[in-house]
Amino acid sequence: MTDLAAIDTPAVLIDIDRVETNLARVQAYADQHGLALRPHIKTHKLPIFAHRAIALGAVGITVQKLGEAEIMVQAGITDIFLPYNIVGDEKLARLRVLNDTATLAVTADSATIVAGLSATFATAEKPLRVLVECDTGMGRCGVQSPAQAVTLAEQIATAPGLVFDGVMTYPAAGGVEANAAWLTAVRDALIAAGLPPRIISNGGTPDLWRAHEVTAATEHRPGTYIYLDRFQVSKNVGSVADCALTVLATVVSRPTENRAIIDAGSKSLTSDTLGLVGFGFIPTYPEAVITSLSEEHGTIDLTNCSTKPAIGDKLRIIPNHACVVSNLFDTVNLISGDQLVERVSVAARGRVD
Amino acid sequence: MTDLAAIDTPAVLIDIDRVETNLARVQAYADQHGLALRPHIKTHKLPIFAHRAIALGAVGITVQKLGEAEIMVQAGITDIFLPYNIVGDEKLARLRVLNDTATLAVTADSATIVAGLSATFATAEKPLRVLVECDTGMGRCGVQSPAQAVTLAEQIATAPGLVFDGVMTYPAAGGVEANAAWLTAVRDALIAAGLPPRIISNGGTPDLWRAHEVTAATEHRPGTYIYLDRFQVSKNVGSVADCALTVLATVVSRPTENRAIIDAGSKSLTSDTLGLVGFGFIPTYPEAVITSLSEEHGTIDLTNCSTKPAIGDKLRIIPNHACVVSNLFDTVNLISGDQLVERVSVAARGRVD
Repeated sequence: MTDLAAIDTPAVLIDIDRVETNLARVQAYADQHGLALRPHIKTHKLPIFAHRAIALGAVGITVQKLGEAEIMVQAGITDIFLPYNIVGDEKLARLRVLNDTATLAVTADSATIVAGLSATFATAEKPLRVLVECDTGMGRCGVQSPAQAVTLAEQIATAPGLVFDGVMTYPAAGGVEANAAWLTAVRDALIAAGLPPRIISNGGTPDLWRAHEVTAATEHRPGTYIYLDRFQVSKNVGSVADCALTVLATVVSRPTENRAIIDAGSKSLTSDTLGLVGFGFIPTYPEAVITSLSEEHGTIDLTNCSTKPAIGDKLRIIPNHACVVSNLFDTVNLISGDQLVERVSVAARGRVD
Repeated sequence: MTDLAAIDTPAVLIDIDRVETNLARVQAYADQHGLALRPHIKTHKLPIFAHRAIALGAVGITVQKLGEAEIMVQAGITDIFLPYNIVGDEKLARLRVLNDTATLAVTADSATIVAGLSATFATAEKPLRVLVECDTGMGRCGVQSPAQAVTLAEQIATAPGLVFDGVMTYPAAGGVEANAAWLTAVRDALIAAGLPPRIISNGGTPDLWRAHEVTAATEHRPGTYIYLDRFQVSKNVGSVADCALTVLATVVSRPTENRAIIDAGSKSLTSDTLGLVGFGFIPTYPEAVITSLSEEHGTIDLTNCSTKPAIGDKLRIIPNHACVVSNLFDTVNLISGDQLVERVSVAARGRVD
């Protein structure tokens, strides 16, 4: 095994012991509350961690892109939820191939999407399972009311080639009560309409530890929980010591007493702030502030640091948002303690469509 | 040739006619003012455009990463400036190999960097050309005064294996006067010290059309000028009609009268705002505002639009910052008018170190 100091920078380090703890802790929580766990692999894009989550008890995985689904099927994952409106002939054709191989479900939030899915799957041997996406407060995709959800569920249920299989939401962070009320209302409305939803799928890491309060939900789809990040720590989902993904960077310049420049910029850490001040947290220099990022430079203000790093020092940075960092690196370094275990290719990185 | 409507989304489109116009226009400006042009390839990461810029008169290219330099050398580019402090044994070894193959120069902004370079190149047959990086207002890397620049130039000039070849800056946008005064002062100080700088290298696209006002500069290193983007248009570097890079996205949801959701989020458009409101500009719907991005969703407010796109419609979006978008896609689509000419691999994408 290699010492971390030998890893060239910038690089992504994944602490596999922390990954294991994070996966197991959330699986135990889901088990305790009778919630099926369906982790979102957009965070890591690695088959190895998809398999590990399933081995620990997850019912399957969630993906956000057809390309991610294809990679995961190739890697032997068989139960996949793609909570996205699939539009266009090319994507629909790929979806049909995928449905022949995997236990697959998608979402729809309009009659237009349902019509496109049905036109493709009407002639298929195996029908496609479809969940109605509900906008329970996020303000993104989704039907706007339980009544609209019932109407769309009826359209799915009667559409050739499709099976209505439930409802899904990605809720607004902090909106637990509204989300819970919405999902209870839509469940009751669907039952009343004779279309009881088999699956009620809730999502997200920020309110993960309150998932059991959304009593109508049958499953949860957290993503970032596997790595955590500075944003999730700010939401008290876990602690700095739980964060499994760090960006290793080297100090390349100390132009002034209080300024350090590192070789990680927006092409490594991303510009995501998620409302936070600064672009990451450095546990070994907790008072340091990453004040700005150029593409290949990060600027750190050391004013409040009692000791200051020197040129050549390597720093481990917890990024604001782990999921977008994974998407920037072709390979990541799996580590245990301060030892490199294995470099792995980020198999589903760049699967943009 | 294929119609653009056949391209699956999200995808990057590069209008090669606009690229040609942008390259030629800036080369003509540089020629007119006797400035050497050394385009920064971080924006596109494509050998084809590096070669085209050189064919039009550029003296060579600029890169920001060793990995980018290696890809460009493999593609036959011979004159490369890497304006970065190279730190660490592994990178220094790669740099030595690169210097054997190419006409190469790097920067240094401290004695520590100079010592590392000299330790590596003292035993090399061919010395390494080094420019002193100057912080003329950007607040990033660079020596803090012309006097410091002279001291460092003397260290480079006497260091085994190194050749002092001039000074370099990446200036603050809008800081033309301060930058010009700084570079004049450092030139005069170096001449007075008996170390006349062969190269005085200025950079950036935002103040490109004022590059001739920086009279001490001998060369300019613009990057984004090849594509332009919403930020550069806001700085009046060019018009919307000059923007060569667009992200093609599909409307996948119209959950409300005034909301559209597209299949391009922060993993396609990036979270870079560069101080702008919103995450891109849609020429066909100029009143539309891309209000927020999730990883794989973009949310558009259509309130002020007289006509509104439907599910399945494809939109071409000018991103806030073209350079970071190039870094997210493995391939880009070269187009002419509304026809696809060729798909090309983004050769230097993901070359993070």
